[in-house]
Amino acid sequence: MTRRILVLNPNVTEAITATMVEEARRVASADTEIVPATARFGTQYIENRVEAAIAGHAVLDALAEQAPGCDAAVVAAFGDPGVFAAKEMLEIPVIGISEAAFLTAYTLGRRYAVVCLTPRLGVWYRECAEEHGLDGRLVAVRPLDVPPSDITAAKQQTGRRLVEACHEVIDRHGAEVVIMGGGPIAGLARTVAHEIPVPVLDGVSCAVRLAEALVDLAPRPATRGSFARPPAKPSQGLAPALQAWVERSGERR
Amino acid sequence: MTRRILVLNPNVTEAITATMVEEARRVASADTEIVPATARFGTQYIENRVEAAIAGHAVLDALAEQAPGCDAAVVAAFGDPGVFAAKEMLEIPVIGISEAAFLTAYTLGRRYAVVCLTPRLGVWYRECAEEHGLDGRLVAVRPLDVPPSDITAAKQQTGRRLVEACHEVIDRHGAEVVIMGGGPIAGLARTVAHEIPVPVLDGVSCAVRLAEALVDLAPRPATRGSFARPPAKPSQGLAPALQAWVERSGERR
Amino acid sequence: MTRRILVLNPNVTEAITATMVEEARRVASADTEIVPATARFGTQYIENRVEAAIAGHAVLDALAEQAPGCDAAVVAAFGDPGVFAAKEMLEIPVIGISEAAFLTAYTLGRRYAVVCLTPRLGVWYRECAEEHGLDGRLVAVRPLDVPPSDITAAKQQTGRRLVEACHEVIDRHGAEVVIMGGGPIAGLARTVAHEIPVPVLDGVSCAVRLAEALVDLAPRPATRGSFARPPAKPSQGLAPALQAWVERSGERR
Amino acid sequence: MTRRILVLNPNVTEAITATMVEEARRVASADTEIVPATARFGTQYIENRVEAAIAGHAVLDALAEQAPGCDAAVVAAFGDPGVFAAKEMLEIPVIGISEAAFLTAYTLGRRYAVVCLTPRLGVWYRECAEEHGLDGRLVAVRPLDVPPSDITAAKQQTGRRLVEACHEVIDRHGAEVVIMGGGPIAGLARTVAHEIPVPVLDGVSCAVRLAEALVDLAPRPATRGSFARPPAKPSQGLAPALQAWVERSGERR
Amino acid sequence: MTRRILVLNPNVTEAITATMVEEARRVASADTEIVPATARFGTQYIENRVEAAIAGHAVLDALAEQAPGCDAAVVAAFGDPGVFAAKEMLEIPVIGISEAAFLTAYTLGRRYAVVCLTPRLGVWYRECAEEHGLDGRLVAVRPLDVPPSDITAAKQQTGRRLVEACHEVIDRHGAEVVIMGGGPIAGLARTVAHEIPVPVLDGVSCAVRLAEALVDLAPRPATRGSFARPPAKPSQGLAPALQAWVERSGERR
Amino acid sequence: MTRRILVLNPNVTEAITATMVEEARRVASADTEIVPATARFGTQYIENRVEAAIAGHAVLDALAEQAPGCDAAVVAAFGDPGVFAAKEMLEIPVIGISEAAFLTAYTLGRRYAVVCLTPRLGVWYRECAEEHGLDGRLVAVRPLDVPPSDITAAKQQTGRRLVEACHEVIDRHGAEVVIMGGGPIAGLARTVAHEIPVPVLDGVSCAVRLAEALVDLAPRPATRGSFARPPAKPSQGLAPALQAWVERSGERR
Repeated sequence: MTRRILVLNPNVTEAITATMVEEARRVASADTEIVPATARFGTQYIENRVEAAIAGHAVLDALAEQAPGCDAAVVAAFGDPGVFAAKEMLEIPVIGISEAAFLTAYTLGRRYAVVCLTPRLGVWYRECAEEHGLDGRLVAVRPLDVPPSDITAAKQQTGRRLVEACHEVIDRHGAEVVIMGGGPIAGLARTVAHEIPVPVLDGVSCAVRLAEALVDLAPRPATRGSFARPPAKPSQGLAPALQAWVERSGERR
Repeated sequence: MTRRILVLNPNVTEAITATMVEEARRVASADTEIVPATARFGTQYIENRVEAAIAGHAVLDALAEQAPGCDAAVVAAFGDPGVFAAKEMLEIPVIGISEAAFLTAYTLGRRYAVVCLTPRLGVWYRECAEEHGLDGRLVAVRPLDVPPSDITAAKQQTGRRLVEACHEVIDRHGAEVVIMGGGPIAGLARTVAHEIPVPVLDGVSCAVRLAEALVDLAPRPATRGSFARPPAKPSQGLAPALQAWVERSGERR
Repeated sequence: MTRRILVLNPNVTEAITATMVEEARRVASADTEIVPATARFGTQYIENRVEAAIAGHAVLDALAEQAPGCDAAVVAAFGDPGVFAAKEMLEIPVIGISEAAFLTAYTLGRRYAVVCLTPRLGVWYRECAEEHGLDGRLVAVRPLDVPPSDITAAKQQTGRRLVEACHEVIDRHGAEVVIMGGGPIAGLARTVAHEIPVPVLDGVSCAVRLAEALVDLAPRPATRGSFARPPAKPSQGLAPALQAWVERSGERR
Repeated sequence: MTRRILVLNPNVTEAITATMVEEARRVASADTEIVPATARFGTQYIENRVEAAIAGHAVLDALAEQAPGCDAAVVAAFGDPGVFAAKEMLEIPVIGISEAAFLTAYTLGRRYAVVCLTPRLGVWYRECAEEHGLDGRLVAVRPLDVPPSDITAAKQQTGRRLVEACHEVIDRHGAEVVIMGGGPIAGLARTVAHEIPVPVLDGVSCAVRLAEALVDLAPRPATRGSFARPPAKPSQGLAPALQAWVERSGERR
Repeated sequence: MTRRILVLNPNVTEAITATMVEEARRVASADTEIVPATARFGTQYIENRVEAAIAGHAVLDALAEQAPGCDAAVVAAFGDPGVFAAKEMLEIPVIGISEAAFLTAYTLGRRYAVVCLTPRLGVWYRECAEEHGLDGRLVAVRPLDVPPSDITAAKQQTGRRLVEACHEVIDRHGAEVVIMGGGPIAGLARTVAHEIPVPVLDGVSCAVRLAEALVDLAPRPATRGSFARPPAKPSQGLAPALQAWVERSGERR
Repeated sequence: MTRRILVLNPNVTEAITATMVEEARRVASADTEIVPATARFGTQYIENRVEAAIAGHAVLDALAEQAPGCDAAVVAAFGDPGVFAAKEMLEIPVIGISEAAFLTAYTLGRRYAVVCLTPRLGVWYRECAEEHGLDGRLVAVRPLDVPPSDITAAKQQTGRRLVEACHEVIDRHGAEVVIMGGGPIAGLARTVAHEIPVPVLDGVSCAVRLAEALVDLAPRPATRGSFARPPAKPSQGLAPALQAWVERSGERR
């Protein structure tokens, strides 16, 4: 069996997609195929609520077109834009990279922290943890202050400062697990792990591994309740694939 | 002084816009002008996470085009799609109709309940209360089970059953305030209030009145923190007005 | 239509009543009449639980006498002494100045802070937010340490330090809205708003505007549940107006 | 050593004082003297927020006069009116009867319930548990619907129905401890305990025993923080003993 | 690469070990070896706090002896006895079967429920969810009332009633995911999944899959904080392997 | 009447038992006999989850043998290992020393803090407060960093630094009550109380006094629910007394 896992970048920057897909492929099992995808519309790098709201739509737009034929989908921007809607829309498992990191953190300690590139990302990630109901164990969010324009190059330039931020959340806030948040720094956690005295997690890696686990568990898709396929409904102004999804009949295929 | 308040319907159905605007005009002060707007894209009636995620983008798309010249904006679908992004985007006060109803309920009692048309709306409204941090006093959500296709006609057909649902949440759950949730039943709360032994609220009315209060208070827009105007950023595939907002320079005008 | 809004100072100091009423009149709509009232008994300036408990009674005592003929009442000490009892007692809307500020803060951001004059006020305001169920978004309370004897003159003398405290809660705690707490500094928020990079709120202004909104919404008073008029009951040692309220028959007039 | 414990009834009904004092004396240690007191002003039987707010003042008024010479004070109405203010005011331990019952319940199980005489008392007791921060383990409040005028005679007439209510909270809500709430039924828990398959508690008994334990532990009174003696302050309209307390100098004697 | 995953039954019944190992082997990847283990001391089937406390020790006792040479360990009793201690003790990933089911449920919906064999198990599982900080989304625990003596045979006899319990938590409590709790019914979820309209989970399957994911992620063991290897310490009365672990020097090997 | 209270040290160090028993005897009433006991197996001084899990079993092992004939039992290690299991096992009141200190703190203020000897103890005590549902008012845990090997001598050597830590939690975190946590420093709170401006508590003293109160209240043991005597069950590898308890018939004697 080969699993096909879609890794969808909710922002429009192909370079970030490439960075994340490279890390996804490194971590994936031998029998997993990583299928890359990038949002059709939106902004260069999602950092605030406006961009995240646009991305929520862009994620659904992309999944309607590209998820068919895949066994699971990873929403690969750290604040998980649109991820609950995507879980409702698709019958395959969908997981966000922050959600995956949070859940993995729960297995490795009782207090976790997030380090990230900018203060606004810090706010977004915190609100993301709240939305997942996984903020009860989040003891700190520690942002750097990288200018948004430099974010795609951040991995090379900020490694040292991110490591320092990790030590800070461990020493001052008692973090027992640290998450390095943000797609552009995918893989950094792996390369600096030896410098940090607690487990350090990367959302993309966690998401790929959890997606594999979910594919193999093969839970039955919901046919009742708020994650079941909703009834068809007239729509307007949507791209063809998403429109087709919204307007077709309500039965699970 | 005349206040101009934009009442934006996040779904594409003009009939619902009309219902809500009629109620908004009835409740507004004499010196308030209600400016109607309807989403350019999306679905007929938002009821689930997929439609709400699309609407989040549609709200920003519409506000970018239509908010200039207004003094406040009301996001007029009960689950408040995109409302936090809209608050971040605009320098004028923005309020959702559920948010407005929840806040008003807090002033009138210590336990509130929501009655609504369908179970999926019930889930959405509950998650909306959680997102606002106002679910601590929400003691019940009581949905009817109206088929989504009948929702725009629900106001005429379901009044009696909604009143019964109100009595149920009062008697069984100790609700001290009841909110009638959903744009298509805007105004119903007013017409049945005499049959219900606690205050009963309508989101549109509450939102118009709170929007007036906020306009008059004239709080200074944030220039720091996560609700400040973010820096300009390259984008792709957005409608002209929203693209202009995203890409222009970051200073508050 | 003219609305009559009672602004009741729960402590016995007329000078503070005058300060608050001046601000209330400045912010009120043209068709709103502000009716001042001051507690008959109690202390000079409420700062602790003993004084607040006395004030809870004093608020009811004053409202029983002075609320008739008014359309809404504002309980104008920041910790909202007796405000839930007052809501239960009166059929007109009642709002506390802290409650009003907290609710307004919820519409303008997701994390709010309070700055105030003394540490004990800080404790009281925090407990007040908890009692309203609105502390989930309260990220900091930052008191100065003004001697209680100087409090009525604080507005002139402490403006600079309060502004610094505002910057501190924004920079260190991520506050997105700041409330300046305390009746004696009513109006200060307005005069320093331009120096503070997020919205800054004053309880009296917020309360007057919300009271107007509630008057106009005209919710039906509760006739069932814990905010309905309780049955008449024998009493002892109360002032005539309050005794009359407690002992008369239980029907809403 | 003889301990003197003041048992203060916050409402004006001497018959209820007598019922509670009888139970207090039955449970107290041999070397404990129970000193009865009754509020000077207020209502016959506290059941709602208005009466509780008046009682908050009445409690302080009575304690200022009668606590001197006692080693601890019990505030003996189930909703604990004024109890935090009383703790702040006095240097001896003060405990409320609901607080005492809640804390005892925490030692005997992980889920407790309250049965009581009327729905409004049920609301008050729940809010009381919230105020103490002890509602996290409160799984049910189950009121009967006794007319307030019959409350002082309730102990004789409602025993059977209260026992049934106990069984209901055990069977339906998983209560592992049950509290019988309300001064007029003090002692009932003891007489029906053999009919109820989990521990059943009475607030007066719990309070007397905890008060004895606190007297013997002899914690030092706070001289800093929000429970320290506040500075003297001018007052107006208070009874002599309370006025003397408020206006004298701020040092702990 | 072959992963060796220890599946440790914390109670002493080999038949339950066999049931769980059979399910573990069915679900495991081809390159995973399942290593069975059974507690040396304790009771037949853990159902209450006494048995769980004994099992907490028994888990550490067994792991000290049998974990060496394994790549991960699964604590395979639904209440996860000793699982946090085991995470602290071992440098390999350790996961409990309830923890695994809860975390998986978080990825598949926003409200989950547990069905189980007896009321006491229901209490234990709820407390387990609280201990993991994963009870925020737990909407119901629905126990049957199977006599403890029949528990090892429960899988054959209670399937029908468990399916009914699943429908009940879906219909009445809005569960979007259901967990079938308890080692003796391992595998049942798989065989009845087609009868239940939402995803239904089995702790053993979830734990094996998550354990594989954690082995592959290979997080660095903590060397600081509360999950790091503690310093050696004198002990008394422990079995040789556990004694050796406790008394040896504190550095991670 | 003479009450016999068992004071059980869950670790194997007789010197710590002696320290605690000395303090227990000093605080106990004249008619209370303190019965000392020490765990048969475990480690020198419990400081982490592994040792606490072993101690959970050791507590039950010791209680099964030594509780008969006693009227109450105190589990005398600050993290309360096995205390809920012990409450389930015995028909006499059981109380942990941390639980006793937390509950006493609730009566004396609204914000409490814990100072203790090592960071790992700090984590354990915090998790203990969470398990009791009494962490809502815990504002700080402030550990020193004493090497575990010095802990039994800590009382002499660290008094000064613990007093400083008390001042720190009062000044920086607003603690209104401070608990000195840890068996080896039992009694220290009493000797330094005059140097600390808020009440300072010692777990052993609080536990002895609360145990006396519970003995005198004489609540009926549960015969239903999760704290009732469970049915007998086959066991393996337990010490004779504990085995006898587990395997005998399920009726309360």
